[in-house]
Amino acid sequence: MPKPIHLNLFIQSRGHHETSWDHPGADTRSLMDLSYYQDLARRAEAAKFDSIFFADVLMVTNDAAESGRYWPEPITLLAALAASTERIGLIATGSCTYSEPYNLARQFASIDHLSNGRAGWNIVTTWVEAVAANYGTSHTNHGDRYDKGEEFVSTVKDLWDSWADDAMVDDRSGGGVSGDLSRITPINFKGKYYQVAGALNVPRTPQGRPVLVQAGASDRGRDFAAKHAEAIFTAHLEKETAQEFYKDIKARAKDFGRDPSQTVILPGLNPVVGGTEAEAKQNLLDLNSRMDPEVGRRTLSQRFAGHDFSHLDLDEPLKVSDFPDPDKLETMKSRAALIVRIVGNEGLTLRELLARFAGGRGHYTTAGTPEQIADLIEDWCTDGAADGFNVMPPVIPLMMDPFIDEVIPLLQKRGLFRTEYVGVTLRENLGLDRPKSRFFPD
Amino acid sequence: MPKPIHLNLFIQSRGHHETSWDHPGADTRSLMDLSYYQDLARRAEAAKFDSIFFADVLMVTNDAAESGRYWPEPITLLAALAASTERIGLIATGSCTYSEPYNLARQFASIDHLSNGRAGWNIVTTWVEAVAANYGTSHTNHGDRYDKGEEFVSTVKDLWDSWADDAMVDDRSGGGVSGDLSRITPINFKGKYYQVAGALNVPRTPQGRPVLVQAGASDRGRDFAAKHAEAIFTAHLEKETAQEFYKDIKARAKDFGRDPSQTVILPGLNPVVGGTEAEAKQNLLDLNSRMDPEVGRRTLSQRFAGHDFSHLDLDEPLKVSDFPDPDKLETMKSRAALIVRIVGNEGLTLRELLARFAGGRGHYTTAGTPEQIADLIEDWCTDGAADGFNVMPPVIPLMMDPFIDEVIPLLQKRGLFRTEYVGVTLRENLGLDRPKSRFFPD
Repeated sequence: MPKPIHLNLFIQSRGHHETSWDHPGADTRSLMDLSYYQDLARRAEAAKFDSIFFADVLMVTNDAAESGRYWPEPITLLAALAASTERIGLIATGSCTYSEPYNLARQFASIDHLSNGRAGWNIVTTWVEAVAANYGTSHTNHGDRYDKGEEFVSTVKDLWDSWADDAMVDDRSGGGVSGDLSRITPINFKGKYYQVAGALNVPRTPQGRPVLVQAGASDRGRDFAAKHAEAIFTAHLEKETAQEFYKDIKARAKDFGRDPSQTVILPGLNPVVGGTEAEAKQNLLDLNSRMDPEVGRRTLSQRFAGHDFSHLDLDEPLKVSDFPDPDKLETMKSRAALIVRIVGNEGLTLRELLARFAGGRGHYTTAGTPEQIADLIEDWCTDGAADGFNVMPPVIPLMMDPFIDEVIPLLQKRGLFRTEYVGVTLRENLGLDRPKSRFFPD
Repeated sequence: MPKPIHLNLFIQSRGHHETSWDHPGADTRSLMDLSYYQDLARRAEAAKFDSIFFADVLMVTNDAAESGRYWPEPITLLAALAASTERIGLIATGSCTYSEPYNLARQFASIDHLSNGRAGWNIVTTWVEAVAANYGTSHTNHGDRYDKGEEFVSTVKDLWDSWADDAMVDDRSGGGVSGDLSRITPINFKGKYYQVAGALNVPRTPQGRPVLVQAGASDRGRDFAAKHAEAIFTAHLEKETAQEFYKDIKARAKDFGRDPSQTVILPGLNPVVGGTEAEAKQNLLDLNSRMDPEVGRRTLSQRFAGHDFSHLDLDEPLKVSDFPDPDKLETMKSRAALIVRIVGNEGLTLRELLARFAGGRGHYTTAGTPEQIADLIEDWCTDGAADGFNVMPPVIPLMMDPFIDEVIPLLQKRGLFRTEYVGVTLRENLGLDRPKSRFFPD
C-alpha cells in the first residue's frame, strides 16, 4: 500500500494565471459572489481534496484591480464556506504583522468550531511598504518580522490552549456550571511585542488547535516552518530543489524535536491537462500568449523592491547582472533568488521568464496528459520531493475540471489518494496528531 | 396606514436572562454549535424580523464562563449565517478600540457582498481594563475613546467609499479591465490615531456601506449616534426616558444635517409572554427566583468600576449614597446613572434591583399577554418613544417562541409589521437610503 498523498485546492480569483479573469474558460460570476466559492468548495469536497485554501494580500494594486485579483476577505469567506460544506478542510491566510493575536486566535478558533474541526491558518509575516501604509505602521525588517511572528504564533497557540478540552462541561443537572473555572487559565503572555492576559473567550476547538500552515522559504522562514507548521506550501520549478527543500525541512523539524511526519509538504502545481501531450503543450502556449508582458514586467519589478526593468528587451537573453542582489531585499528573498537562479541556469529571454511566472508565479507548471500528470505526482511523492500538492489551476473551471475528472481518478486507482474522507477533522485527513493543551496536558 | 415598525432579534447565549444557560426551556446544544445559530436565524427570518444581532465582549470573566456567556466570534458567525439565510439582516458588534480599520472595513464589506447587502456593523468604543489586558494596550479614557472612535468610523466609511459603484466593470469583451482605475481611489486618511492609504481591496458593497448601528447613551455617545448611526439600540426602564432619548437623538441628528428618519431607534425589550397576565407575571417571578444574588452583586460591582457592594444587605432598601458617582466612571456611565436613578426613585432593595437587571440588563422587561405586549409596542412606536424594538428573549427558545408565534401576528394584523420582506437589502427593510460614495458622488 503506497503512502497516501494529500491535495489542497488553492482558489484565487478565476485561476492562478494572471490573465485568467477574462479567459473564455473562466467562470463569469462576480468575484464577490458567494455562490462561486460555494460551488468550488463543494466541487473540491466531492473530489475529496484535503482542503481548499485562500491566500490574501492586504492591499489592492492597479494591476490587481484591473485583472480581477481581489476577493472577499478570506476569514469571512472561510466562515461562510464552513456553513456550506461538510468535510473539506478550510485554510486561509492571516497576517501576524497586521492583526491582533486575540482577534486572530478567536476568529480561527470560531471557524474551527463552526466547521466541526476543519480550520487551518496560513501564517504570513510578509512586510510590504504599500500594505504598511494601509495600517499606518512603520517598517519592520525581515529579521524582526520573524521575531514578531514567533511571538504572535506562541501567543495564539497559548490562547487556543487556555481552555482544557473538558472545560466546557455545560452541566445542566442543577447547581452545575457551563464552564469549569479550574480548567480555564489566563495565559499571561509577556513578550517583547505582545502582552496578552487571556484566557480566550472561545472554548478549546474540535482540533485542539486549527492546523498551522506556512510557506517560509528563506533560511529563517524554513526554521519557522519546521518549528511551527503542520502543512507547508512551497514553490519549486524543479524536482531537485523540491527534494532539497523536503529533506531540509524534515531534518529541521527533527532538530526542533518534532516528528517529521507532522509537517506535510505540499509544493504548488499548475496542471495544464490535454488529451495528448501536444494538446496540453498547445493549451499552455495559448494561455501564455494572452499575457501582457508589460504587466509581467511591473510584477517582476515589485518582486525586486521596485527595481527598474523597463530598459530590457523582451527577446534578448537575460543576464544575472540584470537583477539586484536578492539577499539585499527585505521581503520575498527566496522567490527572487529562484528567479535569478533560473536566469543563470537557463538563459531565458525576458518574455520567456515572464511567461513562466504568469502561469504559476514561481510554482511548478506542467502540461501533459492525465497519465503524465499523475505520474509526476506519484514520482515526486515517492521520491522525497512532496507529501502531496497544492493544486493551482491556471484557469477556473477550465483547467480545474480535467484535473478533478481525469487526474484524481488515476491517483485513486493507483491507491495514492482517498476515495472517501477517512477522518472528520482536517487534522485527521492530513494525518496530523491532535495537540495537547500546553496548560492542561492531562 | 400606520408607520411600519422594525424588529431586531438580539441573540446571545441561550437568552438574555443571566440564568438562561441551564434553564429547562433553553436549547441544549453547545453554544459553539453552528446549527443552533442557523436555526435561530432561519426562525427569525421566517418571522420577518429586520435583522438579528450578536453583541460581543473581548474577554471572558469567571461569571461569563460559568454561566455560558461565551459564543463564536461574531464576525465569523455572521459570515456563516450569511451563507445560511436569504433575506434577514445580519448585525454584529465590532470594536473601534481593538481592531484595525482596514481589517474591520474589509470584513464587514465582505459580509455585505456575501449576503447580498444584509450586513450591519454595531460600533463600540468601550474601554474595559480587563479587555485592554488582552491587547497589551494602555488606558484610553472616555473622551479619547470617542475621538478615536470618530476617526475610526471616518476611516472605515472612506474605505467603503473608495470604489465607485461602477468600478467593478468586469469587461470581458476583450481588451477590457476587471476594475476601472479611474473609479477607484486611495483615501489617504491622515488622522491623529489612524493613517490609512487605501483603497480598500474589496469593491463597493451592495448597500454602498453596511448599516451603521450604535448604542451610545452618554452625551458624547448620543452625539456619536446622532452623527453616524442608522440604527440605534438603547436601554430604557421607563417609556418617559425612551421618549426623551428619542426626541433628543432625532433633534441631534437634525443638527448634524441628517434626516431624522434615517436613524431608526430600537429600545431593548425583554418580553415575558403568558396566556393570562397572571401567568406572565408568574413566569417572570419564576425566572428571577433562579437568580444567584451573589452573581448579580459581582455584575453590579463590575458596572461601577469594581466598587465593593459586599456589605449591603440583600433585603434592605438601597440609598443613592450606596453608589459611587456615575459621572466619575470611565465607561458605561449612562447605564450606571440609570441604576442610581432607579434606586433614588423606587426605593428598591438590592435583591429587587438585581432581579431587575438579571433579566434585561437595564432594558425594559414586560410580562403580559400577547395583546398587552403588542399594545405596548404599538404605544411606544406611535407615541414618540421608538421606531421598533430590539427584542431580547430572556430564555431561548422558551420565551422567544411565544413572541414570534403570538405577538408578531398581532402586530401584522394591525398593519404595523411586514408579512413579507419588501426589500432585498437590510437598508431597504429598515427604510434607509443607500449612501453615495464620498469620492464618487455622481
